[in-house]
This record gives sequence, structure tokens and C-alpha cells, in this order.
Amino acid sequence: MKDKVTIGLCGLGTVGTGVIRILQNHQEEIKHKLGCEIEVKKILVHTLNKSREIDFAPELLTTEAEELVGDKDIDIIIEVMGGIEGTYPLLEKALKNKKHIITANKDLMAVHGQKLLQLAKANHCDIFYEASVAGGIPILRSLTDGLASDRIQKMMGIVNGTTNYILTKMTDDQLAYETVLKEAQDLGYAEADPTADVGGLDAARKMALLANLAFKMNINLNDVEVTGITSISQEDIVFAARLGYTIKLIGVASVFDGKVEVSVEPTLLPEDHPLALVKNEYNAVYIYGEAVGETMFYGPGAGSMPTATSVVSDLMEAVKNIRLGINGNSYVTPQFETRLKENAEKYTRYFVRLEADDEAGTFQALTNVFTSENVSFAKILQLPGSGKNTAEIVMVTHKISKQQLLNSLERLDDLAVVKRLISYYRVDGEE
Amino acid sequence: MKDKVTIGLCGLGTVGTGVIRILQNHQEEIKHKLGCEIEVKKILVHTLNKSREIDFAPELLTTEAEELVGDKDIDIIIEVMGGIEGTYPLLEKALKNKKHIITANKDLMAVHGQKLLQLAKANHCDIFYEASVAGGIPILRSLTDGLASDRIQKMMGIVNGTTNYILTKMTDDQLAYETVLKEAQDLGYAEADPTADVGGLDAARKMALLANLAFKMNINLNDVEVTGITSISQEDIVFAARLGYTIKLIGVASVFDGKVEVSVEPTLLPEDHPLALVKNEYNAVYIYGEAVGETMFYGPGAGSMPTATSVVSDLMEAVKNIRLGINGNSYVTPQFETRLKENAEKYTRYFVRLEADDEAGTFQALTNVFTSENVSFAKILQLPGSGKNTAEIVMVTHKISKQQLLNSLERLDDLAVVKRLISYYRVDGEE
Repeated sequence: MKDKVTIGLCGLGTVGTGVIRILQNHQEEIKHKLGCEIEVKKILVHTLNKSREIDFAPELLTTEAEELVGDKDIDIIIEVMGGIEGTYPLLEKALKNKKHIITANKDLMAVHGQKLLQLAKANHCDIFYEASVAGGIPILRSLTDGLASDRIQKMMGIVNGTTNYILTKMTDDQLAYETVLKEAQDLGYAEADPTADVGGLDAARKMALLANLAFKMNINLNDVEVTGITSISQEDIVFAARLGYTIKLIGVASVFDGKVEVSVEPTLLPEDHPLALVKNEYNAVYIYGEAVGETMFYGPGAGSMPTATSVVSDLMEAVKNIRLGINGNSYVTPQFETRLKENAEKYTRYFVRLEADDEAGTFQALTNVFTSENVSFAKILQLPGSGKNTAEIVMVTHKISKQQLLNSLERLDDLAVVKRLISYYRVDGEE
Repeated sequence: MKDKVTIGLCGLGTVGTGVIRILQNHQEEIKHKLGCEIEVKKILVHTLNKSREIDFAPELLTTEAEELVGDKDIDIIIEVMGGIEGTYPLLEKALKNKKHIITANKDLMAVHGQKLLQLAKANHCDIFYEASVAGGIPILRSLTDGLASDRIQKMMGIVNGTTNYILTKMTDDQLAYETVLKEAQDLGYAEADPTADVGGLDAARKMALLANLAFKMNINLNDVEVTGITSISQEDIVFAARLGYTIKLIGVASVFDGKVEVSVEPTLLPEDHPLALVKNEYNAVYIYGEAVGETMFYGPGAGSMPTATSVVSDLMEAVKNIRLGINGNSYVTPQFETRLKENAEKYTRYFVRLEADDEAGTFQALTNVFTSENVSFAKILQLPGSGKNTAEIVMVTHKISKQQLLNSLERLDDLAVVKRLISYYRVDGEE
């Protein structure tokens, strides 16, 4: 058995620095657990001369990827530099050179994951990517190992820390979206260009990765319906609260009768639902398994050390496999054909908020529309509207199909008494 | 590689039935995941002729343990029959006969775990016991794999569903302990003899198992300080709520400077702490890792199917290992000597409730005692007491040592103005 495993580290930003820090600080424990040493032989960076937060021999640094992926001594490549098209060829070459891969790169995995997984299998290599979804939470391993004998029916995830931070502040401090976004950017919780976060794309990539593992299909980013948080207003939050709900950006992935539905959208949850209480930049994934029932995994979704923890845990798994000579066995084959639900097959509750004329007959006109689409209501709240002689009406439906909702909304739009449809959201987490 | 793995199942109660049910219902998926079949060859029961909820060939049943542990064809023994002294020899023999063990038996593991783990190692056998702690939550695997690269500093767990159910009902429905216990017994959530649950012993066993994995020591049940929930009153719950706390039975395991503290006791948590919101019979384990920060694992702590899910996940792990020929490698050696903290080294906040004379000088007498022990307060609440001219006083200290608390309480007892010390509890989950 090998008594030393050699690593090439691509990227020395916050996560890469965290990885080096853990390997240095936990040297003794890691050696004890694995029965062998881990040596970092090369670190790929953009700039050689730059002040770094950690100590290491300066000759470890290189700007040449070939010095890592072409080095016969290197067993494992850790990729924490990010990027998609520039990074893919590097990992492809590493796999062809029989190097195992640990990556924290959800963007890359969401786009090229299946190709990389197949290449890894063909070369008997491990490819692990725990850190790419929900940073410090060992959620991928829980899906593949801990809940391996169960049949996952539904997952609901808060898998983007930036949007959860923004929604928490909008809810708890009654601030407008723009105000909180600005604050989050100042604090470093949101990027200068926050589009991928607030538009839901980041969460959508993670949900696709989770859904592939849970349902053993090949679900692409294009299969995920995405709505971001940019149009959620303070009034939506207040109305939701009056009916006992909290608005969260929730990724949902569910399967029924072999057909799946994966979406990321603002969703109302009962305020005592475990996910409703996940605050600030924290992440959580709620899982419904046929046998196990409800479980939830909660933790930091990002950050240098949490993400590095997941990277190093993956690394330890790969090292164990190297020592045992069993790499390339953890691959989860897409076992089922990807079949997506039609709108008529997607069932949930909806929250609908609109402004209408405050006059006799308004409610009857509204209920006529809904009744003819076979939509009934669990909760209705009417308050004076902002305009003269207008009423603001908020309704929560019983479970209906998305098609029923869309049909109803189209017909509402034609009603003379309806001034405007203000917003509508999914409602989940209650029967 | 073997294309069939053969199982002997000891016990056909609720969990055993769940195991058979999962193996039957998920046959296809399990076969796909493992690349081999799983066959149950024998089932050990007390009574052969009894109506069962599931279908299987009646000749599988036996009352003779030897037919399982002595059968050369059987690769894995699943033990879900419970019991300690009667069960140990059976597992000992199985390991000596090179059979891998999956068990859900926390009582057995808490008492004989180290012996069994060593025997398993010596015989190159796997012994997995995920189901023994927090039923459906893959917490042991998260500690050994997912968080493997981190250094766990503290765990707080709600690991007993019965007591959590009782405390939830006492809190939400304002009912007395005895009333709720009776109701829980009627519903089957509490045993006819609830002592092990309400006295904290069941939780203590689980915390010892968790602490051993997290801190890599050999912590025995005797090392765990245990206080149950039997003396928590409705008034304690109300006073705690007035100060913003919820009372839960919390198992705490923490390490500092190589010394550990493991306890199970009623604890006040801030009412928006994630553990405070774990309701009814649900379990959760909150983990503080040096690198990862805060994570929480939430799910059902018991029940036929959740527990069986963990058993079958362990089984799948063992089957993978058999096919790869790598059993007996998952053993976690106690790496450090067990060193327990003294009372003077255990730091936390405390809630103290007492009844005193409602007269000038009372508060000064009290504060004199606390000040001389160097104890200061974060919160104080005084209300009229139940007796004539008495006051009820509730205080929450800043962080102090347990020794400081005990010294203060002893001196309070000597004060003439103090009518009685009513209760005191740990306070945790806030800085």
C-alpha cells in the first residue's frame, strides 16, 4: 500500500487557502485516519508573486497547468479555481492521465458533469464534488451513502446563501430588496454582479446536481425552471407573514411515477417549517424519503473553511480508495431516463395577490374564474388597496396543477374588475 | 467478485420487518447500486408461529441462533433484536466466524462496543451501527466521512424522541409532565416503563457513541453526567419562555484542550435556536466543527422504516466492501486517552430559579453570594411568589464554571432570605 499520496492543487483563493490550512493544521489526525501522508507537490496560480495568508515553500507555486496534470507523481488533482470552459480541458487531461479529481466547481459539474463522470469511470478514477453543493454540508455523501437504501421522493433546498441572506434581512428588518443587496455587496455576501445568485441560476445548478444523484437521472440545467428573487417586494413578505408564511428561495426536486420536476423559485413556507427558520447565509436541504420520512441537513453554504472541509473530506475518501485500490467505484450511473412533468402534472399550492375594484360583484367575478378552473382556496385575505376604491386580495389555493394556475391567471387578466395581478408564488411545506 | 451476498437477520420486530420490507420493495435499485443480489437466508425469532405483516417463505424462520452464526454461507448478520448480555455472545461468535455485523442496538454498543469493534478489526470484519443513534439520520457516517477532515469541538443533540415529544407537548399545550407521559404511553411514543427515556439513560448511551466517534476516545456510559426530565415543571417552562428560552433535553459533548465533557440534561436554548425548533418525536444533532462551523442533522429518531433505512444503508456499505474485499477498514481507533473535565473546567450559562422573602435586603444578600463567587448575570426576572411576602426570582448567569454554580447554590441554601431553591438548568446555544 502507498504510504504517501501526492496532490496537485489548482487554485489558491479562499477555498484553496482553506485546504492548505486544514492539511497543515490537521496533519497528525489525517495521517492517523488514513495511515499515510498527504503531500501537496504543486499549486497552480495566476500570479506567482503575491502576498499569501499561509506559509509554504514558494517553489510549490506554478502558473503552468501541465506541471500538475502532466506530473506522474501526482495522484490527485484538487480543483478550486473555478471557471467552466477554461477548466474543463485541464480536468479532462488529468483524468486521462489517471489522476483522481476533487472539485468544488458546481458550474463546471452542472455543465460538464456527466462527461467528466464517464471519463472518470473509464479511467478508474474517482471524481468527488461534495463542496460544489451547500459548502460545508455533507449532502451528496448523505444521498449516495447514508440514504442509499431509500427512495427519495422530494427535496427542498435553500442552496444559495446570498439570496437567503437578502430574504432574511428583508423579512426581519423590513428593508427593500435594493437596500439589502447593496448592504450584502458591501459585506462581501453578494458579488458585484449578483445576477447568478439573485436570478436563481446558482441554486438551479446545485439542484440539478442534487436531483441527478437522488433520482439517478441526467437532469440538465435547462430542465430546471428558474425564478429569482428580484421582484419580491416588502408587501409580498408582509402579506405572506399575515397568512403565517415566510418567503424563501427554494429549490424543489420531486419525482412521481418516474417523472421529475426541478425548479428554483420564491416559495412560501409555513413559518414554523424547519426550512423557514434557516436564516442569513446558511443553507439547508430538506429530504423526503419513502422510508426515512423527513430529514434535514443544515450548515454553512459557502466560506473558505466550510468548503475546504468538504474538499478535504473528499480527498480523504479518494486517498482511502487509492490505498485500497478501489477508485472509480463510487460513480452513480444515471439509471433512469429523464422524464419531466408537464405543467398539468405539477401539483402544489399557490399564493396569488392582486388588486381589484372594491365594488359589489368583484369577488363573485373572481370566484367564477377560479371555480370554472376547479381551483378552491384555503385562505383569503382582503384589505383596502393602494388606489381609490380598490381592494388588495391575497389568496392561497388548495393543491392545484401549475396548468390550472396559469389558466386561471390568464382569465383573471381579462376580467374588468381586476386592476392588476401583483404577484404569485408557490406554497409548500404543508399538507 | 461475489454476485450474491447472504444475510442472517436476528429479530423480526418493527425494525426487522422494515428491513425485509425495504429489501423487497427496493430490490431492483439495490441490485443496480451494488451490482449483486442480497438474499436473506435465515431469520431468528422467538416464536415461529405468529402472524406477520410481511410475506416470506416460512422456512426462513428459526429459533436457533446457531443456524445463523454457524452457517458458512451467511456473510452478514443483521442484529435488530435488542438486549445486551444475551445478544453479545451471538455477535461475538458471528465475528469469530468472520461474519460482518450490522446492528441497531445502542444499548449493546454503549456497553460492549469497544470489545466488538476490536474483535471485528481482528477478524477483518465490518461492524456498522448507524441505526443505533438517531434512527433515520445518517449521523455516524457524517462524523466519520463527511466531516472527517474537521476537528469537532462540540455536539448538542436531541437524541431521544420520547422526551422531546413530552417536552414539546408540555411547552405547546401547557400540560403537566404526568399528563403528557400518560398520553405518550397511550400513543405508543413512550414505553410502559419509561425510565430509560425520561431518566436520560437512553440519550446518554447515544451521546457516548457519538462522542467516541467525534473525539476518538473511549468514553463510557459512566463518564456521562445524566439528568432526566422528570422534575421539569410547567412553571420552569413558562419562566424560561419569559426570558426567551425553550427547555429541551440536550446531550452535550465537548472537548477543550484534550479534555472532554459529556452530559445529558434539561437545557435552556434561545427560542430561535435551530435545536429549539425540533419538535415532537424528531431528533437532531448540532455540530460545531473547527473548520465547518455549525451544521445540523435533523430527522426521525426512531420508527420502523427510518431505522430500517439506516440498517439497509449500512448493509449496502458492507456489501460494497465485501465485493471489493476491503472489510474491516472503517474502524475508528480510539486515538486519544479519555480525559474528563473537572467541574471547575466546565463552562456554560445557568438558569437559577428560587423563592425568597420579598423584603428590603433580599436582593443584596443574593448578589453578595454571587459576587463573592465571581458570578454575574445576563438576565434577572422577579415576580410575586406563591407564598405570602415572597418573591420568585429567576436569573440567567453569564458563562461560569459548574464549580462556581455549585458553590453559589450551596451558599444560597444557607441564606435566611432564601425560602427554597426551585430549579436550575444549563443554558446553551448563545454567546
